[in-house]
Amino acid sequence: MSITAPAGFTAAGVAAGLKLTGAKDVALVANQGPTFDSATVFTANRCQANPILWSKEVVKDGTVRAVVINSGGANCYTGAEGFQTTHATAERVAEHLGIGAIDVVVCSTGLIGMLNDRDDLLAGVDAAAAGLSPDGGTDAAEAIMTTDSVSKQVVVEGAGWSIGGMAKGAGMLAPQLATMLVVLTTDAVVPAADLDTALRAATRVSFDRLDSDGCMSTNDTVTLMASGASGITPSLEDFTAALTQACTDLAMQLLKDAEGADHEIAITTLNAATEDEAVEVSRSVARSNLFKAAVFGNDPNWGRVLASIGTTDATFDPADLDVAINGVWVCKQSTPHADPATVDLKPREVSVTIDLKSGSERATVWTNDLTHAYVHENSAYSS
Amino acid sequence: MSITAPAGFTAAGVAAGLKLTGAKDVALVANQGPTFDSATVFTANRCQANPILWSKEVVKDGTVRAVVINSGGANCYTGAEGFQTTHATAERVAEHLGIGAIDVVVCSTGLIGMLNDRDDLLAGVDAAAAGLSPDGGTDAAEAIMTTDSVSKQVVVEGAGWSIGGMAKGAGMLAPQLATMLVVLTTDAVVPAADLDTALRAATRVSFDRLDSDGCMSTNDTVTLMASGASGITPSLEDFTAALTQACTDLAMQLLKDAEGADHEIAITTLNAATEDEAVEVSRSVARSNLFKAAVFGNDPNWGRVLASIGTTDATFDPADLDVAINGVWVCKQSTPHADPATVDLKPREVSVTIDLKSGSERATVWTNDLTHAYVHENSAYSS
Repeated sequence: MSITAPAGFTAAGVAAGLKLTGAKDVALVANQGPTFDSATVFTANRCQANPILWSKEVVKDGTVRAVVINSGGANCYTGAEGFQTTHATAERVAEHLGIGAIDVVVCSTGLIGMLNDRDDLLAGVDAAAAGLSPDGGTDAAEAIMTTDSVSKQVVVEGAGWSIGGMAKGAGMLAPQLATMLVVLTTDAVVPAADLDTALRAATRVSFDRLDSDGCMSTNDTVTLMASGASGITPSLEDFTAALTQACTDLAMQLLKDAEGADHEIAITTLNAATEDEAVEVSRSVARSNLFKAAVFGNDPNWGRVLASIGTTDATFDPADLDVAINGVWVCKQSTPHADPATVDLKPREVSVTIDLKSGSERATVWTNDLTHAYVHENSAYSS
Repeated sequence: MSITAPAGFTAAGVAAGLKLTGAKDVALVANQGPTFDSATVFTANRCQANPILWSKEVVKDGTVRAVVINSGGANCYTGAEGFQTTHATAERVAEHLGIGAIDVVVCSTGLIGMLNDRDDLLAGVDAAAAGLSPDGGTDAAEAIMTTDSVSKQVVVEGAGWSIGGMAKGAGMLAPQLATMLVVLTTDAVVPAADLDTALRAATRVSFDRLDSDGCMSTNDTVTLMASGASGITPSLEDFTAALTQACTDLAMQLLKDAEGADHEIAITTLNAATEDEAVEVSRSVARSNLFKAAVFGNDPNWGRVLASIGTTDATFDPADLDVAINGVWVCKQSTPHADPATVDLKPREVSVTIDLKSGSERATVWTNDLTHAYVHENSAYSS
């Protein structure tokens, strides 16, 4: 169900031949109203794909009536011809739905620097529009997959309203999103300004704290549409909490499906002077290839944690840092403490806890280990 | 010869049992004068090893008479006991040479979070001091190796004076140095202030632009000592040029011996608004695991280059970037140009050229590819 769980949404996912495998590759999600409020966040990468350039214009007025997504090609660094393909895609969706193209968000994912076949893509849009259904959520979620091994979907229930979501992404997961496309739907009645506030709050502590491999993508988009079909207006606080739950759930699904990973690593920094500093410290560890390779080797190498912390500008005393791995305080006051041999790193889930002793703020950043399989998948992907 | 090529220096390298293999692990380099001017740069990491804490005090007055280095243990995050070991090492060198301990730079390399055996280390100092010789340069260069597969040495000849150097490092090579220890010697007559100017100029364009794996070390030290034994005072310009040549030569030796690498990659950014922006752009590509994995797979993936450039704040038009790989302009104006299939990535040396079209400054950053062997070496190192 996922994105079609909330009332007022239809979806479809079809195979248009963009993927050589013949798998589904065009997804369409339509908001049937009665409201068409929306909010969207995009990648912070300055080199942006054509769908981003288009969709940034679409979302400016807070109204989005449909999202169309293709996998099998990112339509990135494809110049004016690529932009025309994006525009034509939106126009075709608009024709079918009897709406304006300027209310159609377009997303693309797959290889960059390669033009999509426009005729195949538009034929896919035709088929998707014909197949729109309140049961189409799973088909849509499958159609946006690239190297994903499973589709990612979520439903969070409110009091008489709900939030649905789908996501794709399995690498290039870095701050300010990733090659990560997310569509969120709700039947709550929430004006666009509040959707924006809630979405920024939710992504800030979920997708923005996922840092699988430090590589920021060119195509990331998270779009939230509200149909208002439940007729219920939740408090902004309740809505934000439910949206944060949905985003965090999807982020953890992305983390667990990261290309080639053997471990999911949650890096939590405690007692930081500010939340930003807690994020900075956790992210520095998430970016350390040496530490990530050590986790792959089941080696609780806390020295590499301290070496990463030392590259940041956060407030701390370099001689008074504590580090726990899977709950074992292997380092206290920047010197060896518990025997690292007592840390069991065989389970997939790994926790690193850093105590900065400089305040009362905290934050968690999630990453994966650096494995042979990561190197293999990312050295072979476009060959 | 290396560090003992310039007149006025003796050196030794001995096995003290710190390395389990029985290989040489204590090096001593002594300046016999008549001058004792020096300059030193250290890692920018805020979590610093005990030898750094000690040596920062030593170098303050511009006088260094000896450098003692042990491999087999970094003496990092080892607390007060580790600091005492560093201090005792300097004291023992000073006793043998009849100098003050405060003129003895101490460096350590190897595993972090582990105490060195102080008795073994001091016995090694005794043996090294007894073995000091004008022919000891190669022994010293071998004694500082850790995962290095070869020793790194250089000699650059001036007009009646020379510069010698040795280095160790095979990973954790990131800006503001690496687990990289370098000793440079010269018999030119150069006052400490000029040595400092020359050393900062030379490291800025050599060691500081080596970014093997984005991981910054806790122990890096580059020490330059001038004996004045040639009696010749070169111009600062000539001396800086020769020192830059020596540092660049050693940096390239480090690059070529990086753990597990199959390729050396030189990333040059042209026509940047400022040199700093050229470095920022080149470094962003050097830090991309996705691009580095692509090079390992012999895949000229220019899309991953643009995606990295887009994460920077440099001045450029995202729609007007040109990228060449091994001289083939695979991307012009941010769209596909020459056929990537014409790029031959089988040779070890790879060049990436980025044209920002925003000014006239340029810079090169060097990195390695991301390989199975890198993951293997760094997941197994401390187990």
